[in-house]
Amino acid sequence: MPLSTISDQYPSRLLEEAVQSIASLPGVGRRSALRLALHLLRQPEENVRHFADSIVKMREETVYCRECMMISDEEICPICSDRTRDRRTVCVVENVRDVMSIEKTGQYHGLYHVLGGIISPINGVGPSDLSIAGLVRRVGELSSANPPSEVEVVLALSGDVEGETTSFYIFRQIEHFGVRVSSLARGLGFGDDLEYADELTLGRSIVNRQEFRP
Amino acid sequence: MPLSTISDQYPSRLLEEAVQSIASLPGVGRRSALRLALHLLRQPEENVRHFADSIVKMREETVYCRECMMISDEEICPICSDRTRDRRTVCVVENVRDVMSIEKTGQYHGLYHVLGGIISPINGVGPSDLSIAGLVRRVGELSSANPPSEVEVVLALSGDVEGETTSFYIFRQIEHFGVRVSSLARGLGFGDDLEYADELTLGRSIVNRQEFRP
Repeated sequence: MPLSTISDQYPSRLLEEAVQSIASLPGVGRRSALRLALHLLRQPEENVRHFADSIVKMREETVYCRECMMISDEEICPICSDRTRDRRTVCVVENVRDVMSIEKTGQYHGLYHVLGGIISPINGVGPSDLSIAGLVRRVGELSSANPPSEVEVVLALSGDVEGETTSFYIFRQIEHFGVRVSSLARGLGFGDDLEYADELTLGRSIVNRQEFRP
Repeated sequence: MPLSTISDQYPSRLLEEAVQSIASLPGVGRRSALRLALHLLRQPEENVRHFADSIVKMREETVYCRECMMISDEEICPICSDRTRDRRTVCVVENVRDVMSIEKTGQYHGLYHVLGGIISPINGVGPSDLSIAGLVRRVGELSSANPPSEVEVVLALSGDVEGETTSFYIFRQIEHFGVRVSSLARGLGFGDDLEYADELTLGRSIVNRQEFRP
């Protein structure tokens, strides 16, 4: 086999395919992917199989919580099935990373609702791509089972235009229930990503959440 | 299940295990690992299975070329089985990435020998951990099948102390065969500014100056 048939100078087609797979991850270039592939090549077969299995298992066996749409191993996630939490407060977040960030502060004891994204016309994400209908239904149920004034929806979305747009959209959908709607205190700088906020600031933002006034 | 049983606030044990696996890769922290895991969670199951399979397949089915110890899909790698290459020149490199870098230049047409590392007492890597014995045997065979002066070993190792040590060790092992031994030219890189070159490199460039052929 002449050398010219090795595409892009990879000595092994299997190596090349693995590099291509790894390089398909966001933020991983071909050079890093090659470095990672060669690292995996040096590990015991068992470890590499465990590595791959844990990823496939996560993809195939996790589900979205029927209540809050968070990633979960069971139909109802551990937070939604925790009877000690305040079940009349629902914190609306973009994704599970935001849930983890807020949980880490230890300042919030209600439930969550994971939107699965944020309204972003530029990325082609509209309200129907997110779990907003489920949120509206949830808030509706809460406000008929409880005095609406004792139900609170915390809009914990990022402080950028897309976050504000999404908050506003959700507010419009739920304001007729008469529930309290709050948003994170603006201790966060504008344009700051929730994920990268330090715990103290984020915790303060949860404690000082304020009534949503569009 | 109370929230406190979720270790480190992961909502899913399967997610956590996948994040742990990904974070075991060199240079990947837990935060990046979580980001990558959530990315994989959003991909179609088929893609994730393909991702995992390509890595396991690479680990289980690639072998080391019997001749040059390069990663290969077959017993003899494509370069070693390429009859158009100069079979009396062997370029000694640390790893397969170096082979790929040299191949990319298009300037080398001989064979390779992949050491699989470099002598590094600080990392506990000695000569016996590398494929040096195989290299010595190869050079011995080449020098009995050909006039030794027509056999060349190119030591293409890094220009640091460990590279120099390894080059020197290999040279000691093969000098008695009477073959030609060369090492990579050291000097200023193309586009390098004289002002910022280190003294050692600049000194070497002066000593090894070459006839100007415009």
